[in-house]
Amino acid sequence: MDERIRDHADVLVDWSARIEQGDDVVLSVGEGAHDLGVAVAEKLGAIGANPVTTYASAELTRAYLRAHDGQFDEVPAHELALYEHADAVLRLGGSNNTTGTADVPPDIRHDWPAEAVREARLDTDWVSTLHPTRAHAQQAGMAYAQYQDFVYDAVLRDWEHLAAEMAQLKDRLDAGSEVRIVKADTDLTMSIENRTAVNSAASVAYDSHNLPSGEVFTAPTATDGTVTFDVPMTHDGTRIRDVRLTFEDGAVVDYSAAVGEDALAALVETDEGSRRLGELGIGMNRGIDRFTDNILFDEKMGGTIHLALGRAYDACLPAGESGNESAVHADFITDMRVDGTRLEIDEEVIQRNGIFCWEDGFEA
Amino acid sequence: MDERIRDHADVLVDWSARIEQGDDVVLSVGEGAHDLGVAVAEKLGAIGANPVTTYASAELTRAYLRAHDGQFDEVPAHELALYEHADAVLRLGGSNNTTGTADVPPDIRHDWPAEAVREARLDTDWVSTLHPTRAHAQQAGMAYAQYQDFVYDAVLRDWEHLAAEMAQLKDRLDAGSEVRIVKADTDLTMSIENRTAVNSAASVAYDSHNLPSGEVFTAPTATDGTVTFDVPMTHDGTRIRDVRLTFEDGAVVDYSAAVGEDALAALVETDEGSRRLGELGIGMNRGIDRFTDNILFDEKMGGTIHLALGRAYDACLPAGESGNESAVHADFITDMRVDGTRLEIDEEVIQRNGIFCWEDGFEA
Repeated sequence: MDERIRDHADVLVDWSARIEQGDDVVLSVGEGAHDLGVAVAEKLGAIGANPVTTYASAELTRAYLRAHDGQFDEVPAHELALYEHADAVLRLGGSNNTTGTADVPPDIRHDWPAEAVREARLDTDWVSTLHPTRAHAQQAGMAYAQYQDFVYDAVLRDWEHLAAEMAQLKDRLDAGSEVRIVKADTDLTMSIENRTAVNSAASVAYDSHNLPSGEVFTAPTATDGTVTFDVPMTHDGTRIRDVRLTFEDGAVVDYSAAVGEDALAALVETDEGSRRLGELGIGMNRGIDRFTDNILFDEKMGGTIHLALGRAYDACLPAGESGNESAVHADFITDMRVDGTRLEIDEEVIQRNGIFCWEDGFEA
Repeated sequence: MDERIRDHADVLVDWSARIEQGDDVVLSVGEGAHDLGVAVAEKLGAIGANPVTTYASAELTRAYLRAHDGQFDEVPAHELALYEHADAVLRLGGSNNTTGTADVPPDIRHDWPAEAVREARLDTDWVSTLHPTRAHAQQAGMAYAQYQDFVYDAVLRDWEHLAAEMAQLKDRLDAGSEVRIVKADTDLTMSIENRTAVNSAASVAYDSHNLPSGEVFTAPTATDGTVTFDVPMTHDGTRIRDVRLTFEDGAVVDYSAAVGEDALAALVETDEGSRRLGELGIGMNRGIDRFTDNILFDEKMGGTIHLALGRAYDACLPAGESGNESAVHADFITDMRVDGTRLEIDEEVIQRNGIFCWEDGFEA
């Protein structure tokens, strides 16, 4: 076994999910994630945790959902009980075909599994990660060995060190009132008054549930100006490129895309909340050095910023206050690692040309 | 997909497990049983049952158990809840290596999973079946396509018809008092007074939990005489051949084996109950035409008889009576499809040379 698979399991179990002896764990193994499953099982055995191992297969899901009449009226008692009694859920993604559910009608896909099951799962110390497969390499346009290197560079970080670095940015955001993003064809301001940033350090201890992670995010309001996104994205199977959004008083008043404008229109016009930002995220994972058409990685790249239309995360809001609500949460990424870009908090330049003010090479 | 995989799923879900709309099902997919998993998922979708799909991998189990300290003190609450709330468990066996847990210490293997979890699983409408894999073909000494034919011949029977045929034998056993088995080097009698035979027709409706099945079995007592078993068996990884057992007053008084006599000795001398028979089983599945070193198939072969040392099944006993008890239940098979053999119930010849009295070719 590639020693990096064991290292991946170590980070997942120890740093991310903080599994302890006696923990009741649901270990979800993707159809291509067997090898990581073996390494995680070994870790759980050594710790003395108790796994129930589930199988996450796009092919089984597709077969089930296409044959089903789509009436999911009752919450399956056994599935709900499994998650309600679980301390943690470790989801080892890893497909053999990343488009394996392409011909499942979207409304059926969205109604399953039951909302109560999803909530019970999210109520655990859950962490999602990805085992590199040939299918994901293909989606990224990369050779398999090259993609393995890419994934392990992103996952096998010094997370403690990165968490400390990200804390600096979180502190600045928490103390700040206004964020400004400047770039060619981009000049956008937003309020972050009374907002709490999340230091997403790939650990449940940081309220962060993806491995890799490595971003600091908050929930902005009162967005004004124009922003362009030069990183391509895939939304519900449709490619969208070169998105440009113009905001007034917090809401999108104009939008365009070079590719996939219809899909963008459907997104923006989903509901009232889909015209407003739910998230400002600032990527800080320097182990991610290229875009691979996988949001789990793309949005964490150090030197990028992403903005999401739609739903805001409660963790960013004052207690009792509800943020932007929407049926969607769609991330758009802009690459700040080019000349002439600036990220400002209250007019102080925090990042220039993709380099943070505390990093080597920063030009004040 | 090989159409026989869908047929297998049909038999499993409809005939064997009797799954209905709304049933909460645990679908356990072996590491090599993915294709059958897809077909079963499709069936469950069409019926409107609710699967939780688990992953049964010898490699994950091995990694977990070898790393564990072997102290399994607590019952995992999530695992117990899953099975307690399940209506049915469908176990799709199918290994990529049938010796995948060979280096796990047996005592750890026997302590896991927790007894309460096993009991909750057995309390459901559970059915075990096997998807043909290359590893199982190898264990059988067969080519892959040849082994697929073998498995589907065994599984895709007219079960309704076979159940009716087996009912004839069950009725004779239920009405009878004494069974006699005669063959070269074999003359054995046993009492079946007050015993109820089980018509094991591969369906929970018949209290039968293996697919394929196709045997009628009961729990004999007062065994006397000598019996030889010419079908090789593997017990806990050890090959045992040409076993000969001599009984007096129900207990083994002499035993030998051409191969594996030490393993046989350990078996026979496990405890008081391991010297006595727990089962007389009569194979009636004519779709199984060769031995493949897999007890799930071997013991069901039409024209064979198996006897088990050790634990008896409660279903064969009068209500409230407990049968032979033991830590083991070890099956030995003798092939009756040779000249000069007889199976008698109360001195009436029920089977001669492997042919039942109601079959063509029977010599009265």
